[in-house]
Amino acid sequence: MATALFHDGLTVHTQSHDYPIIITEKSATEASSMAKQVAPYISGRQVLIVTNDIVAPLYLKSLEDELAQQFTVKVCVLPDGEQYKNQTSIDQIYDALMAEHFNRDVTLIALGGGVVGDMTGFAAASFMRGVNFIQIPTTLLSQVDSSVGGKTGINHAQGKNMIGAFWQPQIVLAEMSTLKTLPARELSAGLAEVIKYALIMDADFLTWLEHNLPAMMALDLAVLGEAVKRCCQYKADVVAQDERESGVRALLNFGHTFGHVIETHEGYGNWLHGEAVAAGMVQAAELSQKLGWLTNEDVARIKRVLTLANLPITPPTIDVQTALDLMGHDKKVKHGQIRLILLKSIGEAVLTNDFDAELLTDVLSQHSS
Amino acid sequence: MATALFHDGLTVHTQSHDYPIIITEKSATEASSMAKQVAPYISGRQVLIVTNDIVAPLYLKSLEDELAQQFTVKVCVLPDGEQYKNQTSIDQIYDALMAEHFNRDVTLIALGGGVVGDMTGFAAASFMRGVNFIQIPTTLLSQVDSSVGGKTGINHAQGKNMIGAFWQPQIVLAEMSTLKTLPARELSAGLAEVIKYALIMDADFLTWLEHNLPAMMALDLAVLGEAVKRCCQYKADVVAQDERESGVRALLNFGHTFGHVIETHEGYGNWLHGEAVAAGMVQAAELSQKLGWLTNEDVARIKRVLTLANLPITPPTIDVQTALDLMGHDKKVKHGQIRLILLKSIGEAVLTNDFDAELLTDVLSQHSS
Repeated sequence: MATALFHDGLTVHTQSHDYPIIITEKSATEASSMAKQVAPYISGRQVLIVTNDIVAPLYLKSLEDELAQQFTVKVCVLPDGEQYKNQTSIDQIYDALMAEHFNRDVTLIALGGGVVGDMTGFAAASFMRGVNFIQIPTTLLSQVDSSVGGKTGINHAQGKNMIGAFWQPQIVLAEMSTLKTLPARELSAGLAEVIKYALIMDADFLTWLEHNLPAMMALDLAVLGEAVKRCCQYKADVVAQDERESGVRALLNFGHTFGHVIETHEGYGNWLHGEAVAAGMVQAAELSQKLGWLTNEDVARIKRVLTLANLPITPPTIDVQTALDLMGHDKKVKHGQIRLILLKSIGEAVLTNDFDAELLTDVLSQHSS
Repeated sequence: MATALFHDGLTVHTQSHDYPIIITEKSATEASSMAKQVAPYISGRQVLIVTNDIVAPLYLKSLEDELAQQFTVKVCVLPDGEQYKNQTSIDQIYDALMAEHFNRDVTLIALGGGVVGDMTGFAAASFMRGVNFIQIPTTLLSQVDSSVGGKTGINHAQGKNMIGAFWQPQIVLAEMSTLKTLPARELSAGLAEVIKYALIMDADFLTWLEHNLPAMMALDLAVLGEAVKRCCQYKADVVAQDERESGVRALLNFGHTFGHVIETHEGYGNWLHGEAVAAGMVQAAELSQKLGWLTNEDVARIKRVLTLANLPITPPTIDVQTALDLMGHDKKVKHGQIRLILLKSIGEAVLTNDFDAELLTDVLSQHSS
């Protein structure tokens, strides 16, 4: 695989504007390149970098120092973790912006994983009714998923991602080298979303993953870069068709309705998002099998590939009625009917409420008390 | 003036969608008409009416009861006042939505003045990344200004309207009869924005107001309806040209930068927004006069018409440096330079930073300690 691939970049087409995704393989010591890559996309003089206490020691200083040569740069360091993806953290970002007298010209930079990106994006969407922001995702999960497409937001105590906005970044910069500092558990969580793209969109990519997952888990940056690029291309195509998720974009939530139940029930942060999605995809596959769309072997194959990526394939024990109630809070509910993304076959997903409620109960009760 | 005028309605053209403004003269006892007017603009089955404890006893019951025949209707009653235009109130709206398991199909209805409208709009913009909402403004201020154009938001402890979104309603319904229950002080506050349109856009309208203000203050609903219609037409024209306030829309903020200083310094709610804008417009006019754009007689005329509407023409005592600092937090600041909307003549406004800072200091120090 040619390294050149990673310097092509992609373009995301959205209603508000087009923007590039740059995927590079730079070495971690060359971290100053982050500043060089994003500086042309900063239109004013003011920059607020938002990051967390895990990522800050790794990448903040060089980014901050280099940008400070051209811009007024301030930093907001939030505590790490999904459990801090809430209004309190957003208020900290607002307070930092107000304390600096920053105005509509400010650019916010999200340096971190999906939680940092979602919160920074929502703060940018809502500060002074909308300012620019830039995504520098440092986890595999955020590189292939949350940093692309403009979904931003926070959790409500009663539901995940309930508060937010569609707000597009000026650029997404994914440096593969940042994956070298990512804990193995989080790399696996990111692989759940990579596998998701294969299951809903491209059976050939699943075969590719079955061959290449070992190299990815051994941090072969070239192979990881190729996978990230493919995933970003899938997502960019979907977002261009359906930015506000009135149609096809919903398919990207495969495994997520089941996964949200797990995350909400277990408390945000105890199961990683990707882990919950992995177990949730298995449940969605099981329901697809009960409908006669997937074979037993398809389900077994999905479990094998998730296991290869060190991901859980069994949800925690959750009472069926509790699970159904939690599903009622999910955004995919329409007119009170639970709609789920299921697989017609490997590589082809549908959003449907056309299934017997008992089959859903069957799937849920396999893991209830 | 023919009553027919008020049934024409206007259309606001925006990026996301076009929507009507309906201005009616219905009698207050016929309040059930509100439900009839807005029902066709509710696309799902779920409705949350957001109002406050002053407006609720007047108009809530009939609206709620009649809508409940077709929809699942819940209510969120907030405390009245600018001092509650904050995150705590937004959280109350989110909590009400979550408690009812409301989803993306919900329509929020803002029943009240500008504070209720701004908060309901922002909650609609951010709940599940955006749901529909409807404006039923019950104050003159919100009928001529805040309900039209999609600016939504809340205050930050350090600045007014610092958090928010551009989010357009499905319909704006302005019933003139609601002005009969509006306190005289609030009617005057609304007249400040009416006078503003004349000062920045239409010298003839100022002459019209000089003749018609007494009838408006005596609650002649036909004359009030005509004024509201003219103001909504001015605003709709501006919004169609410049929805996100990158250009001409900023002119609608005439008097507001000075006014925001007053509101922030005095604490939200002690000076009504319209009162602060009135005194702020006088300060902006005084600076325009110092630049040789307005005559002394122009400034005197502006003061006379504001006085005719029972509005203050003198700001409270505020230290000059404090005022300048507070201006630094205003959204109209660009690249650290204070930009102000000033009058080239009556009926013609400009946004400019091309003035001697000393002249601004002179104007501010007329009312400093």
